[in-house]
Amino acid sequence: MASIHIPWQERPKDCKDILWRHTDNPIIERDAIPSSNSIFNSAVVPFQDGFAGVFRCDNKAVQMNIFAGFSKNGLDWEIEHDPIKFKEGNTQMIQSDYKYDPRVTFIEDRYWISWCNGYHGPTIGIGYTFDFKEFFQCENAFLPFNRNGVLFPQKIDGKYAMLSRPSDNGHTQFGDIYISYSPDMKYWGEHRCVMKTTPFELSAWQCAKIGAGPVPILVNEGWLMFYHGVINTCNGFRYSMGAAILDRDNPDQVKYRTQPYLLSPQTQYECVGDVPNVVFPCAALHSEEEDRVAVYYGAADTVTAVAYGRLSEIVKFTIENSI
Amino acid sequence: MASIHIPWQERPKDCKDILWRHTDNPIIERDAIPSSNSIFNSAVVPFQDGFAGVFRCDNKAVQMNIFAGFSKNGLDWEIEHDPIKFKEGNTQMIQSDYKYDPRVTFIEDRYWISWCNGYHGPTIGIGYTFDFKEFFQCENAFLPFNRNGVLFPQKIDGKYAMLSRPSDNGHTQFGDIYISYSPDMKYWGEHRCVMKTTPFELSAWQCAKIGAGPVPILVNEGWLMFYHGVINTCNGFRYSMGAAILDRDNPDQVKYRTQPYLLSPQTQYECVGDVPNVVFPCAALHSEEEDRVAVYYGAADTVTAVAYGRLSEIVKFTIENSI
Amino acid sequence: MASIHIPWQERPKDCKDILWRHTDNPIIERDAIPSSNSIFNSAVVPFQDGFAGVFRCDNKAVQMNIFAGFSKNGLDWEIEHDPIKFKEGNTQMIQSDYKYDPRVTFIEDRYWISWCNGYHGPTIGIGYTFDFKEFFQCENAFLPFNRNGVLFPQKIDGKYAMLSRPSDNGHTQFGDIYISYSPDMKYWGEHRCVMKTTPFELSAWQCAKIGAGPVPILVNEGWLMFYHGVINTCNGFRYSMGAAILDRDNPDQVKYRTQPYLLSPQTQYECVGDVPNVVFPCAALHSEEEDRVAVYYGAADTVTAVAYGRLSEIVKFTIENSI
Amino acid sequence: MASIHIPWQERPKDCKDILWRHTDNPIIERDAIPSSNSIFNSAVVPFQDGFAGVFRCDNKAVQMNIFAGFSKNGLDWEIEHDPIKFKEGNTQMIQSDYKYDPRVTFIEDRYWISWCNGYHGPTIGIGYTFDFKEFFQCENAFLPFNRNGVLFPQKIDGKYAMLSRPSDNGHTQFGDIYISYSPDMKYWGEHRCVMKTTPFELSAWQCAKIGAGPVPILVNEGWLMFYHGVINTCNGFRYSMGAAILDRDNPDQVKYRTQPYLLSPQTQYECVGDVPNVVFPCAALHSEEEDRVAVYYGAADTVTAVAYGRLSEIVKFTIENSI
Amino acid sequence: MASIHIPWQERPKDCKDILWRHTDNPIIERDAIPSSNSIFNSAVVPFQDGFAGVFRCDNKAVQMNIFAGFSKNGLDWEIEHDPIKFKEGNTQMIQSDYKYDPRVTFIEDRYWISWCNGYHGPTIGIGYTFDFKEFFQCENAFLPFNRNGVLFPQKIDGKYAMLSRPSDNGHTQFGDIYISYSPDMKYWGEHRCVMKTTPFELSAWQCAKIGAGPVPILVNEGWLMFYHGVINTCNGFRYSMGAAILDRDNPDQVKYRTQPYLLSPQTQYECVGDVPNVVFPCAALHSEEEDRVAVYYGAADTVTAVAYGRLSEIVKFTIENSI
Amino acid sequence: MASIHIPWQERPKDCKDILWRHTDNPIIERDAIPSSNSIFNSAVVPFQDGFAGVFRCDNKAVQMNIFAGFSKNGLDWEIEHDPIKFKEGNTQMIQSDYKYDPRVTFIEDRYWISWCNGYHGPTIGIGYTFDFKEFFQCENAFLPFNRNGVLFPQKIDGKYAMLSRPSDNGHTQFGDIYISYSPDMKYWGEHRCVMKTTPFELSAWQCAKIGAGPVPILVNEGWLMFYHGVINTCNGFRYSMGAAILDRDNPDQVKYRTQPYLLSPQTQYECVGDVPNVVFPCAALHSEEEDRVAVYYGAADTVTAVAYGRLSEIVKFTIENSI
Repeated sequence: MASIHIPWQERPKDCKDILWRHTDNPIIERDAIPSSNSIFNSAVVPFQDGFAGVFRCDNKAVQMNIFAGFSKNGLDWEIEHDPIKFKEGNTQMIQSDYKYDPRVTFIEDRYWISWCNGYHGPTIGIGYTFDFKEFFQCENAFLPFNRNGVLFPQKIDGKYAMLSRPSDNGHTQFGDIYISYSPDMKYWGEHRCVMKTTPFELSAWQCAKIGAGPVPILVNEGWLMFYHGVINTCNGFRYSMGAAILDRDNPDQVKYRTQPYLLSPQTQYECVGDVPNVVFPCAALHSEEEDRVAVYYGAADTVTAVAYGRLSEIVKFTIENSI
Repeated sequence: MASIHIPWQERPKDCKDILWRHTDNPIIERDAIPSSNSIFNSAVVPFQDGFAGVFRCDNKAVQMNIFAGFSKNGLDWEIEHDPIKFKEGNTQMIQSDYKYDPRVTFIEDRYWISWCNGYHGPTIGIGYTFDFKEFFQCENAFLPFNRNGVLFPQKIDGKYAMLSRPSDNGHTQFGDIYISYSPDMKYWGEHRCVMKTTPFELSAWQCAKIGAGPVPILVNEGWLMFYHGVINTCNGFRYSMGAAILDRDNPDQVKYRTQPYLLSPQTQYECVGDVPNVVFPCAALHSEEEDRVAVYYGAADTVTAVAYGRLSEIVKFTIENSI
Repeated sequence: MASIHIPWQERPKDCKDILWRHTDNPIIERDAIPSSNSIFNSAVVPFQDGFAGVFRCDNKAVQMNIFAGFSKNGLDWEIEHDPIKFKEGNTQMIQSDYKYDPRVTFIEDRYWISWCNGYHGPTIGIGYTFDFKEFFQCENAFLPFNRNGVLFPQKIDGKYAMLSRPSDNGHTQFGDIYISYSPDMKYWGEHRCVMKTTPFELSAWQCAKIGAGPVPILVNEGWLMFYHGVINTCNGFRYSMGAAILDRDNPDQVKYRTQPYLLSPQTQYECVGDVPNVVFPCAALHSEEEDRVAVYYGAADTVTAVAYGRLSEIVKFTIENSI
Repeated sequence: MASIHIPWQERPKDCKDILWRHTDNPIIERDAIPSSNSIFNSAVVPFQDGFAGVFRCDNKAVQMNIFAGFSKNGLDWEIEHDPIKFKEGNTQMIQSDYKYDPRVTFIEDRYWISWCNGYHGPTIGIGYTFDFKEFFQCENAFLPFNRNGVLFPQKIDGKYAMLSRPSDNGHTQFGDIYISYSPDMKYWGEHRCVMKTTPFELSAWQCAKIGAGPVPILVNEGWLMFYHGVINTCNGFRYSMGAAILDRDNPDQVKYRTQPYLLSPQTQYECVGDVPNVVFPCAALHSEEEDRVAVYYGAADTVTAVAYGRLSEIVKFTIENSI
Repeated sequence: MASIHIPWQERPKDCKDILWRHTDNPIIERDAIPSSNSIFNSAVVPFQDGFAGVFRCDNKAVQMNIFAGFSKNGLDWEIEHDPIKFKEGNTQMIQSDYKYDPRVTFIEDRYWISWCNGYHGPTIGIGYTFDFKEFFQCENAFLPFNRNGVLFPQKIDGKYAMLSRPSDNGHTQFGDIYISYSPDMKYWGEHRCVMKTTPFELSAWQCAKIGAGPVPILVNEGWLMFYHGVINTCNGFRYSMGAAILDRDNPDQVKYRTQPYLLSPQTQYECVGDVPNVVFPCAALHSEEEDRVAVYYGAADTVTAVAYGRLSEIVKFTIENSI
Repeated sequence: MASIHIPWQERPKDCKDILWRHTDNPIIERDAIPSSNSIFNSAVVPFQDGFAGVFRCDNKAVQMNIFAGFSKNGLDWEIEHDPIKFKEGNTQMIQSDYKYDPRVTFIEDRYWISWCNGYHGPTIGIGYTFDFKEFFQCENAFLPFNRNGVLFPQKIDGKYAMLSRPSDNGHTQFGDIYISYSPDMKYWGEHRCVMKTTPFELSAWQCAKIGAGPVPILVNEGWLMFYHGVINTCNGFRYSMGAAILDRDNPDQVKYRTQPYLLSPQTQYECVGDVPNVVFPCAALHSEEEDRVAVYYGAADTVTAVAYGRLSEIVKFTIENSI
C-alpha cells in the first residue's frame, strides 16, 4: 500500500469542521450499474495497486444484494453487474434471503466480509475472499436479529472480534453496540455490551439507536470507531455520524465518544432520496503517515459519498468533546 | 379520436428505462387554480377534439375535492375553479365528506367516474357524466373502508367490473387489489382477490400495499394494469409504479407482474412536496396504432406529472420481468 | 311453532334487571363435542318440533368452524361432531380459511346462515339450508374486512337486508353498524351507516366498537336489535350487550338505543375463560304471545349461555333509557 | 419604537397570498454561530434602537438551548455564542434539562420569556430580563407535559395570561390550545380550553394538533393569534401556519379562525432539513401605523425565515375565511 | 373523633403480612345502589359520630360520577342514589364530563374533595363541603391531563399542597408523582417532582406508573403516603399498593419507599371483575393511639375493599425495606 | 434413579385427554417461601434418591431470581429461602440484572442450568452445579435478546446443543425456536431455525410465538419436545402447551408437531393470577419403563402445577395429529 494514495481533498477554506465532504459527491450514483435502484452503505479496502470493494446495490425490484467492485483511485469505481456468488466456506451454504450493508477487512491472509444476512430476519453473515473474484460464505455469526456486524482488522487476545447491534425484525426503535469473540470464525461468545445510546438531553443525535460503521482503525489511543447514531424525529429517523475510541486490549471499554456528531445530513444528496436524512458510514481508508482518512458513507439510502479528515484531529476532537 | 394525438416525447438518448418522464414535468403546478394547495392524483380521457379530466385539487384548507378540466393537447389544462357539483344519479344523494383520487373511463354511452368518497371513512364513490358539465352521483360501490376503485373500460361477461383496495380508516399499513362485479352499477358482488403484496425479499417496493392506478388497457395479452406499490421505510411510505397483465376474461387471474418498478420517486418534484417520495398513477392515454402510452401520475401528493412509454415494450418487459 | 315453547325461566325474586341469566348457565360447555376447545357465539332457530342451530366450535388447534346441532327444548343440544360441509350455492365454492360467529334466520323458504368467513381476512359468508343437513354456500356478501353480518328475517322493500360491521384485519379498535341491501343475495349495495359508537362520556360500555347480534325481531315499535358494545379498558376489551329499535321501513334509522347495557360480564363463566369479560349475543328466540325472549350469547369466548327477558319490558326500557 | 422600522418587503407582483416570504430567506442559516446545528423557532422584539431576540440554537450534539441576539434591522442578527445563563428569579433555580422554542414579550417593566423547559419532560419555563444581558428564571408555569407557552403582552383583568398546549412526553399525536391566568407569574389557575383541532373534513392542515405561535397582537377585533397546525400524513407531520382572533376581554372565546392556512411548507428550506415540511412561527413584529407585520418562523427545524403581511388584510382574511 | 372507632380486625394467625384483608371483603358490592355497575376507588373520612365518604359509582351506562355516603361503623354504607350536585365554589361552574376516583380530607374548616374531572380529558377537580349535603366546586387545579390529585390534610408553609400524576389522555403508559402548592386553592405553582417509577430490575410492580392513593398521614417520620404502582404485563396492567414516607416540611423529598408491595391482587374479587388484577387505594382511616390503619381500596375496578395494618409496623417496614 | 418413582396419577375416568392434571394442583403455592410473590416456570431433575430443582421465585418487589429446592417425591418441595449465589464458571462474573425461567439437565458429569438472564435485556444465562449447593456461572450463550434457552440432555455430534427463542426486549409479539451448537459451552454457532409459528388458520393457539419448554426427551422417534405456543387475543396472550418430535441426529428437522394443543389454560389456577391464561412448561420427569411423564408447568405466572401422560401415547398423538 506504500505507493497507493487514498482519496483526498484538503479542507475548504473557512471550513472548521472535523470532517468535510468530497466536492464531487456523490462519488457513486444510484444507477451506476444497469440493474441498480441505489448504491450505498458499501465497503472498500486497499487491494493490489488500487482498491477493491463490496457494494450494496439494491436493484429495481428493491432486492438487496452485495457486489464486488474495483477502482484505481478509490473514487471512480467499476462495479460488477452481477452480485457476488458465494461458495461454501466453513459450512454448508447458509440461507440468504438478502444481503446488505457489507463491511470488509483484511486479517492475516484474506479479506473478510460481514454483512446483514437475511436468515429468518436480519443477522450477521460472514464470508471471505482472497482475490475479490472467488468468495466463500461461512456460518452466520449470530442468531437473528442483528445488524451492523463489523470485524476488527486483527485478532484480539488470539480471537476474532466483532462488533454488532442486536435488534428486532422491523424498523428497530432501539439498538446498542456489542462485541463478541470467536476462536475460529464459526462459534462466537464472550458477548459484551460496548456502548449504548445516550440520554436525549446529553446528545440527542444518538439517542435512539447506534451502530458500528467502518472497520475500527488502530491509533495510539486505541481503536478509532466511526459509528452512526439515530434520532427519532416526528418525521422519521435521522442518521448522523460520530466517533469513539475503544480500549486497544479491552475494546468493550469506551475511552472517548463524541458528544457532537461529526457529520449529519445537510446536503441535497443526504437529505433527499429513497430514505431522507441518512448519513451511514461503512468504510474508511486511512493513511497514518499522511494523517488522512477518507470515510465512505451511504447518503439517503440512495448514493455513496466520501468525507475527509485528519486522523490526528479526529482523535483529538473525540477526546476533547467526549461525553 | 382518430385525429387526436396523445401527449408524447421520444425516449431520451442513453435512456434505457421503460418509462421516461416528460421534460417539462410537472405539467400541472400545485397552484394552477386560485384555491388550490396541490393538484395531483387525477384522471384524463380523450374527449371531443381533445381531452377532458377530473382532477384532485386540495384547497388551502387541505379539503379534498374533484374538479373538471379540459385540454387540447393533454398537457396544458384549464381546470374549473369550482369543484364538481353532482346531481342525483341512481339514488338519492350520498353523503360525501370529501372526494379524492378520481379515475375516469368511457363505457357504452357515458363517462364513469370513480373516486375515494368520504362516507364515514373512505369508500368508493361512483358517478357519471355525458359532457363533463353535468355530473350524476350513484350509490357507493362498497362499504367503507376502501380506496383506489378503478372501473374496467368495458363490461366483462355482461357485468361492470371494478378493481379496489379494501383497507382501514387511517394511514393503512396493508392493502391488496380485489375485483368485484355489478349487473347495474348499484349492487356489487362476486368479490375476488386479484393480487397481493409481495414478500419483502422478492420485490420490496411493493411489499407493504398495492393499489390499481389507471383504467386497465386491453392489449393482446390481456388487461394491462399500471398500479402503485408501497414500501414502508424507516422514514415513511415510498410509492412507486409497476405493471401487471390480467387475464382478459377472468381478470382476477394475474398472468404477469413486474418484479422491478417502472418508475420510482427520483426527481425533485417526486421527492419533495407535501408527502415526499410519491409516484401515484391514476390515468393513462394510449394509442395502439402509434404504440404509445402517456401515464399521468401525482408526484409527492403535490403536482401532476406525465411519463411516456411504448405499449409493446411495456408488455414485453412485464412478461420478461414477471415475478 | 305454535306448540313449541322457547326456553324460559321466570325473573328471580329481588331481581330488577331487564335480562336475567338462566340458572344453569352455561348451557353448552366448552367440551360438549370431543374435538372442541370452546363452543360459543352460536345461533339457534325454531325447527320442526324443536330447535336447530349453527354453532361455533373452535377445535383444540383453535381452528374456527361452524357445526349444526339440534335440540328439543332449546337448552340441551346435540351438536354434530363434524363441521358443516357446504355445497355450491349461487356460485362456485368460495375459499373459506375459517368460519365463525354464525347467525341463522328463516326467510321465505329456507334458513339463511351468515357468518364471518375467512377470505383473505374476515368478511361475511352466506349460505342456506332447508333441513340443516344439506348446506349451500353463496357468494360472500362483501369485500373484506367485515364481521357480524346479520340478515333481517324478511325482505325490506323487496330486497334482502343485512347488518354488518366493516373493520380491519386484526383486533379491530373501531367498528360501527351498517346496513346493505341485495335483490338476489349475490350483489349488494345501498350501503348505509346505521349506528355508531357513543362518546365515552355518554355511554362508555359501547364507546370502542359495536356490532349487531341476533337476527332483529319485529315488534310494534320497529326492529328490536340486540347488539354488543365494547369498551377498551387498560386490561383489554370488555363486551356487553344492549338493545336498539330501528325503524321498520327504513332500518338505517335508529329510533331508540339503550344508554345502559342490558347485560355485562359479571359471572365466573363470563369473566374467566379463553377471552375474559365477554358477553356476545348471536341469537334470540322469542314468543310474542308469551311476551318472552331467550337470548343466546357466547361467554368469555368459551361457552354458550342464555338470558331471559320480557319483550315488552325490553322495548319499554329501550325507549325510556334511550340515548 | 417610533423611529424604528420593522423588516419589510412589498408583496411581489402576481402574488395574491396573504403572507409572502422574504426574498432572502432564510435570514438565519443553521450554522450562524460556531456551535450550532440549527437555529429556528426563535423570538424577537423591538429593543432600544433596534431589535433583540431569544434564539433556539441546537448544537452539534443536538442539545437544545436558547441564546440572546441583537439586530439593527431585524434581519441581520448577532447571536451570542453562549446560551443564556439564568439567575434565580422568583424561586430557587429550576432544573432545566433543555430549553427550546422561546417566545418573548414586554409587559409593564420587563421582557418576559417563556419556553419549553425540560423538567422531567417538557413543560413551560418562564424568565425575564430587563436588558437581554442579565436573565432571571422563575417557577415553571405548569406541571409537565406542556409546550408552546405564549404570554399575552398585557395583563387581562389584572392577571397575567398564558396560552399553552398540554400534551404528553413524546412526539405528541394530539394538542389543543388552552389559556391560564396568574396573579403573580408564580401560581397559575383558571385553565380554559381556547381552541381545538379541526375535523379532517373541515380543515385538514390543522386536524392533528395546534399550538400558539407569536405573542398575540391586539387589533380592533380582538387578539390576533398566529398559530401552527399539524396534519399527520403517511410520511410524518406537516406544520403550517394559520391565524385566529380571540375576544379581547375573554380570550378563551375564539371569534374567527382561518379555515385555510396562511403559509405552508413549499420552499426548499421549508421542505428539506432536519425535520422536513415544517413552518413554525414563534414571533411577529408589527407596526400598526404602517399596517405591517413580519412573522418569524422556523423552517424545517433547521433555519429561521420571515414572512410579511398587512395587518388589516390578515384580519379581514381571518374573518372572511373563518371556520 | 375521640369515641369513634375505625374499622378493625386483628391480624389472622399465621399471617405475617404488613397489611391483611377484611374477612368480609368486599365491603361494598358492585350493585349497592340501584343504578350502579360498580363502586370502587372511593374515599371516606370521620364525620360527626361516624363516617362520611365520597364514592365512585359507575352506572350501567358506565358513566362515572361521585356520590356521598354515610356509615356508622365505616363498613356498612348508605350511599346516596343520586350523584353529588355541585354549586359554584370559587368560580363559575366548571365543565365536568365525568368525575371519578375521589379523595376527601378535612382542612381547617371544611372537607375538601379532589377527583379526576373530565375537562377536555382528565384533570384534577376540586370541591368542598361542610356537611356532605351541600357541595361546592372550585377551579380545576391543573391543565389536563392529570389524575390522582391528593391534598395534604394541612397547609404546608402556609400553602395548600397537592400530589398529582400528570399523564396523557388515554390508557397512560407512564406516570410519576408530583407536588404543587397554592395560596388559595385557585392558583397553583411550585411544581416539583416527588417520586418516579422504579427500574424493572429494582422493583417491577411499580415500574410502569405510580400514583398517590389516600390522603397522606402525618407520623413521626414524616408523611406516610400509600400509593399504587403498576406493572405492564403481557396481559395488561396489574395495580398493587406500596407505601412511602415523605419529608414533613419538604414533602417533595422521599425519605423511604417500599421496594416490596404491601398488597397485590390475589383474591377473587381483586383478580376477577371489570378490570382484572387491580388494587387501588384511595383512602385510609387511622387511629394513632390505637396504632391502627384501615385502608380502603378499589378491587378489580368493581368493588370496594378494606385492609388493616399497624401504623408503627408499616412505618418500620417502609424504612427497613426502602429502595 | 432405578428405585425412584416419578410423580404419578392415573388418568381420571372418562378423561380422554393426552395430558391430565394432578388433582392437587398447584403443587407449589405462590407463597411457598416467605419472600415470594409467585413461584412458577421452574425446573426439576432426578437427584440422588429424590429430586432437585431450580425454581423461579419472584419476590414481593417482583424481582426475578432462581432458587434451589429439593424433594423426595417430586411433589412436596423444600425451596431455599435465598436465591442461588453463583461463583465464577468459565469466565469472570457476568452481569445479571435478573434471572428467570430456568431449565436444568444432566450432561456427562454435572447439572447444567440455563435461564433467561438480564444482561442489557434478556438473553440466555448458563451455569452448572454438581450438587445443587455450589453453583457456577458461565458465559451467556448469546447476545440479547433471547429467552427460553433449553439444552439437550446429551451432546449431539460431539457438541452441546441448545434451543432458544430470539426476540426483542419487551412483550415480544413474535418468536420462533432456533438451535445452536457449542464445542465448549462458551462459544456458540451453527445457528439454525427449527420451528416457526403456524398460520392462524392452521393452528391458532401457536400462531403468535412459540418457545421450547422442558429439556427434550429422547424417544425412539427422535427428540420429544414439549413447547409453549401463544395466541394473541383481544384480551392479551394465551399460553398453551404442545409437543413436537425432532430428528435425533439433526434436531433442526421437525418430524412431527401437534396441531392441537395438549394443555391449555382452563382451570382457575391457570386462568386467574398475576398473568391470566398461562400454561408454561419448563420441565418433565419421565420413566421409559413405566411409560410415564410428569410435566411441570407454571400456571398464570403465579404457581407451579403438574400434568401427567403416557410417553407412548404422547408420541403417537403427536405423529397422528401432526401439522
